[in-house]
Amino acid sequence: MSELRQNMATKEWVIIAKERAKRPEDFKRKDDKGKADIKDKPSYSATCPFCIGNEKLTLEPVIEVKGDDGKWLVKVVPNKFFALSPDGSLKRTQDGVIRRMDGVGYHDVIIEAPVHNTTTALMPVSQVKEILKVYRAFYRMVEDDPRAAQVIIFKNHGESAGTSLEHPHSQVVATPIIPGDIRHRIEEAMIYFDDTGECVFCNMLNDELRLKERVVMESEHFVVIVPYAAMAPFQMWILPKEHASSYSHITDEQVDDLAPVLKKCLAKLYYGLGNPDYNYAIRTAPREMGNVSYLHWYISIIPRLTKAAGFEIGSGMFINVSLPENDTRFLREVDVEGLI
Amino acid sequence: MSELRQNMATKEWVIIAKERAKRPEDFKRKDDKGKADIKDKPSYSATCPFCIGNEKLTLEPVIEVKGDDGKWLVKVVPNKFFALSPDGSLKRTQDGVIRRMDGVGYHDVIIEAPVHNTTTALMPVSQVKEILKVYRAFYRMVEDDPRAAQVIIFKNHGESAGTSLEHPHSQVVATPIIPGDIRHRIEEAMIYFDDTGECVFCNMLNDELRLKERVVMESEHFVVIVPYAAMAPFQMWILPKEHASSYSHITDEQVDDLAPVLKKCLAKLYYGLGNPDYNYAIRTAPREMGNVSYLHWYISIIPRLTKAAGFEIGSGMFINVSLPENDTRFLREVDVEGLI
Repeated sequence: MSELRQNMATKEWVIIAKERAKRPEDFKRKDDKGKADIKDKPSYSATCPFCIGNEKLTLEPVIEVKGDDGKWLVKVVPNKFFALSPDGSLKRTQDGVIRRMDGVGYHDVIIEAPVHNTTTALMPVSQVKEILKVYRAFYRMVEDDPRAAQVIIFKNHGESAGTSLEHPHSQVVATPIIPGDIRHRIEEAMIYFDDTGECVFCNMLNDELRLKERVVMESEHFVVIVPYAAMAPFQMWILPKEHASSYSHITDEQVDDLAPVLKKCLAKLYYGLGNPDYNYAIRTAPREMGNVSYLHWYISIIPRLTKAAGFEIGSGMFINVSLPENDTRFLREVDVEGLI
Repeated sequence: MSELRQNMATKEWVIIAKERAKRPEDFKRKDDKGKADIKDKPSYSATCPFCIGNEKLTLEPVIEVKGDDGKWLVKVVPNKFFALSPDGSLKRTQDGVIRRMDGVGYHDVIIEAPVHNTTTALMPVSQVKEILKVYRAFYRMVEDDPRAAQVIIFKNHGESAGTSLEHPHSQVVATPIIPGDIRHRIEEAMIYFDDTGECVFCNMLNDELRLKERVVMESEHFVVIVPYAAMAPFQMWILPKEHASSYSHITDEQVDDLAPVLKKCLAKLYYGLGNPDYNYAIRTAPREMGNVSYLHWYISIIPRLTKAAGFEIGSGMFINVSLPENDTRFLREVDVEGLI
């Protein structure tokens, strides 16, 4: 018998399809990309726009972190093939059922390292800290900018996760409107708070720590769970223990703690499942929102091991062919402690 | 400059990324699957569970349409690898932030033809009519069944659309809850009706017929448009001209008119873009809802030419790298009239 599980934060139902369920081992990547170690690739590619030495192939950085030697460690450059750009008007126009506005906002690339042949799972923790601080710097850079109603920071790792560039990078898109999906989540969190006086994410985190069944790891400031109603196999949420609605509020101390946690999560995927393609996204409050009691930022990591099909398109629901409790056990057992 | 367009029915914004835009021709499939004609494959496969003669490989049909010769033409069989099944309880249980119910509902396969080497784009119109009538028969079969709060009929064509089986088939999943995404769409349509006293889909349809820029074709009872805020290249909506909120109300006369329209839409993709993978889904009212003034059923066809990535996962928004008006012109020009 399958099971329907509701994510209490988003109120979205997920089908946990036990009849179609695979064993965690079955998701292990078997093609060449899974077997190859990224470190074995060359550290520099002459045609890669993100490699150190090829700076002329990208636009001028808007944020740049330099090492003691004066060379850049992490930087943010405008995307040459941008979906949104800072130029244009915020004015909306309407004629009948036609409503539009200029594609105004930001679409930047965060180049995560000067070398080509690495990925977050393999980087020194110090490098991951710099990336996390650059994410924060972007939020703070646009904190008064009306073109950035919602900042979405995300990473596409691998071809089926939507990237064709190997060089480690993440992206930021700042939209001039609040996407409907994000608004619905905010509304659901408000309703829960109205009912209970409590943050649904804080309650979820505490329940999961009490039940222990879906906790992949825990650090001083963060908890990593496979959500009870995970939408995909091995989905993970990295939740800060201290309530805060926006990533922009993250402290240096929290960054120092988050960096090894993020690295370990991704290393568990890399070593446990053979470098699967994945996306992650930081879910955070809209720019104009203060530190509200009902919303809680987190990072959602989604390995791309299955395909969304007509059912997902037609319903917005997901079918997960893996049991979150099994995924948790599997991920816990991938030993990455020695790598940190 | 890119553009943000809002779908007035769903209130979802889409980024039309002109800087990243391709020409319609660039989407044409270049691999072997694109070049091959499905008709050139064998009409029978000994290992295919859906081929005529292999009935023992599937479960007993719940709906079956027979031809004059007594052989089946179209049938509905329970999915052996079901996500939901009719057995189980509708009772929800909750403990803290854990809310669940049995995976109760339906997950059936609609086998669209007895022969292996065909697809809707290539079938006789008479066969497409039988498929459309079987869809209606399913809705009517469960019209009093509380396990089917929402019926989602969809088709996955091709590997990147989520199917591994070549034999022409579509699927039906009936969920015991109304998916959040569908509820949000209903709410938006109600708000529009509250504001205007009119159905947003009727208005959209009439505006598009007046503007003509995005109308791919028109028949007596249906209009095919590329939505103004299309979420993907070559997305099409087939909208009935007469207001009705559920597909279950479709008349025989409308089916007779819809069959060639659906075939032509899919033939335009097949011949124009080289047999691209696609999904379609029927968007229709929840089972318990009467024929309400504010909702309008339609079929949404989504070719799978681009990949959803971290931005889509993190925001719920889509980036469309093709201009709906260009897609419309391209689709209009693919001549399929002689094939009907």
